[in-house]
Amino acid sequence: MDFKEQVSNTDNSQEQHNFREQEQHGLYKTIFNRRDVRGQFLTKAVPKQVLSRILYAAHHAPSVGFMQPWDFIIIQSPKVKNKIHQDFTLAHQEAQAMFDSNKQDKYKNLKLEGIIESPINICITCDRERTGKTVIGRTHMKEMDLYSSVCAVQNFWLAARAEGIGVGWVSILHHDALRKTLSLPDNVVPIAYLCLGYVSHFNEKPELETANWLLRRPIDELVSFDTWGQPATSSQEQALIAQLQLDEAFPRSFADKK
Amino acid sequence: MDFKEQVSNTDNSQEQHNFREQEQHGLYKTIFNRRDVRGQFLTKAVPKQVLSRILYAAHHAPSVGFMQPWDFIIIQSPKVKNKIHQDFTLAHQEAQAMFDSNKQDKYKNLKLEGIIESPINICITCDRERTGKTVIGRTHMKEMDLYSSVCAVQNFWLAARAEGIGVGWVSILHHDALRKTLSLPDNVVPIAYLCLGYVSHFNEKPELETANWLLRRPIDELVSFDTWGQPATSSQEQALIAQLQLDEAFPRSFADKK
Repeated sequence: MDFKEQVSNTDNSQEQHNFREQEQHGLYKTIFNRRDVRGQFLTKAVPKQVLSRILYAAHHAPSVGFMQPWDFIIIQSPKVKNKIHQDFTLAHQEAQAMFDSNKQDKYKNLKLEGIIESPINICITCDRERTGKTVIGRTHMKEMDLYSSVCAVQNFWLAARAEGIGVGWVSILHHDALRKTLSLPDNVVPIAYLCLGYVSHFNEKPELETANWLLRRPIDELVSFDTWGQPATSSQEQALIAQLQLDEAFPRSFADKK
Repeated sequence: MDFKEQVSNTDNSQEQHNFREQEQHGLYKTIFNRRDVRGQFLTKAVPKQVLSRILYAAHHAPSVGFMQPWDFIIIQSPKVKNKIHQDFTLAHQEAQAMFDSNKQDKYKNLKLEGIIESPINICITCDRERTGKTVIGRTHMKEMDLYSSVCAVQNFWLAARAEGIGVGWVSILHHDALRKTLSLPDNVVPIAYLCLGYVSHFNEKPELETANWLLRRPIDELVSFDTWGQPATSSQEQALIAQLQLDEAFPRSFADKK
């Protein structure tokens, strides 16, 4: 069953606020074809119009107490990129030693960053003091501002994908080295160090899935009801699990065949 | 200048991987019209087909080392919802006292959750031990698995919006009470407690913006170059800042007028 049939099979006579099928298609297609890009960057420049749209998408992420705690450091200086890459190389060596010996070779052969090859690096940060000490919604869960900046990263990533721009998140870095290289003040936390640019191709699947490092988990094993680990008991709950199993091919139905 | 003109003004002759304009429109429309919903929930049930699609969107978020650390606890039991709501009420009272006296009245009058009114609550979690101790990309930045689950939250939220479903993130809760109510094991962290359902309307702007609690920040003030706080110096950098200023109305051009 394709998406169009699925949508028309849904009783949505009363849902006045859902978007048109083609718009929903655009969102789902983006979500299911977004990839963490490391090895396929082209040197071609990213036009300012495209970068501007992607930044606006990030800036319209949800934020706790409307804090908008993010900043965007756009890095093109070879000097800064080289420093970050040196730190990556060190951290990557340290990381390799942490894996069991049978996984070390496989780990060593994975391409995990595109710092130098990508035309633009961007660090998205979180200013923990942006709107003062007391923030609506952060009074009890102090991590909420960090999570807001992560939502900005995800918006950025999705908009980039729809624009044909690849994004890779580099997390094999030492916090302190990154802070120092980018001269971050104490109240600012680096959330994501991203590489971006046009790409030769987007992979069909996540690289770690293709490499058999780990498999995609069956979604029905990730869903429980009312409390942790409680399986479906009511007929309605069982019907949701059956629906999830039925929809197994839903993400693949958006494969970009262009 | 509208989005269509913008896109055709962009030199994209070589971008083979960008999506069609209508698909990009769907993504941007979703991003710019997503709202944190608290007060407009309808009792109408969410069809299993719709919930299944939204869960698949969440499950295809990026995750560090392909960990997929998320689980989804779907809560409809009045007993569980009432317990969560009792804890919210307590935390909300504590929170009010934290604000300066001139903001306390305004704070008190804000509607900050829809736990009882929304037909479904969902807790999205992070299992910190899902794939063992050593995870690619989490060797140095230990928070990366938490951030992966946040990306799942944002995917969930966007897919819900495109389906016409409102989502509200409730963060005025005590971690320990939430863990206890949902029987979370020690290795599982609650990331987001969400309320969802169909809504009477989506607000045009974030409620805290409308209430003049805080304003939307000008995006050009959030962008720096190469290191923290460094303003645009090259003509290319200055052109990006000018583009961001020119695009100020870009998000509003997607306002849902249906």
